[in-house]
Amino acid sequence: MILSVFSDEHFMKEAYKQALYAKEEGEIPIGAVVVCNNKIIARAYNQTEKLNDVTAHAEILAITAASNNLGNKYLKDCTLYVTVEPCVMCAGASYWAQLKRIVFATTDPKRGYRRFGNNLIHPKTETESGILAHECANLMTEFFLNKRF
Amino acid sequence: MILSVFSDEHFMKEAYKQALYAKEEGEIPIGAVVVCNNKIIARAYNQTEKLNDVTAHAEILAITAASNNLGNKYLKDCTLYVTVEPCVMCAGASYWAQLKRIVFATTDPKRGYRRFGNNLIHPKTETESGILAHECANLMTEFFLNKRF
Repeated sequence: MILSVFSDEHFMKEAYKQALYAKEEGEIPIGAVVVCNNKIIARAYNQTEKLNDVTAHAEILAITAASNNLGNKYLKDCTLYVTVEPCVMCAGASYWAQLKRIVFATTDPKRGYRRFGNNLIHPKTETESGILAHECANLMTEFFLNKRF
Repeated sequence: MILSVFSDEHFMKEAYKQALYAKEEGEIPIGAVVVCNNKIIARAYNQTEKLNDVTAHAEILAITAASNNLGNKYLKDCTLYVTVEPCVMCAGASYWAQLKRIVFATTDPKRGYRRFGNNLIHPKTETESGILAHECANLMTEFFLNKRF
């Protein structure tokens, strides 16, 4: 299958590449990109260890970078691609940013925002999941297995 | 009444001072301090306008600064004092930081985390509210009234 440059798969692969950077640095392997008008305007990966800061999730860093890029704190025309279901903090950040869409790969039943229903997300934000789920979940499983042994 | 240097009132007054800085800069007037062993290790106020970043809430900036100060991303021995009930994003951040206590002044029925119950907060984090509530609420009311006219 030839992927369109503008497909969700394409952009999720870019988020996955960010997750690989996190992995290389010993961080929990989660990556994100923000896309506006089919263009990637922000890329980020989880840096909580490096920055010694629980708020340095891929999504938070990507939202901050996207706002900086656009000169606008609202991201109403933007889609956030992230390799794992956002946590409560990141769902809350997406609410304030009023993202158009959130596309995440794999679910996170333990820490994901959906434990609390869909109300944490802005009512105008569409959500989608499952794209590259297997690959992104494998990265996480592998990371935590290596941590254990 | 003479306030103890180490009272909740004392530290909330410091958070209130931060909220006044926000007000002076035309930001939604919310301030926060983080206290560890009776010492203020971080002070911050809402800077979403100045930084053009929805994530730049007083609590997020204070948590980041406190972690930087301690060299530890967990704030298990720290209390966050904040002039308004934290939002979902900030409650989520406090969860990850595993704060010992959150003390907030005035409630925020519209945007506060408690709309979703107390489960957004870490089970080990104690919460308290009502200290300097009137003063901190007045700051907010005044801000939004001025915005309207």
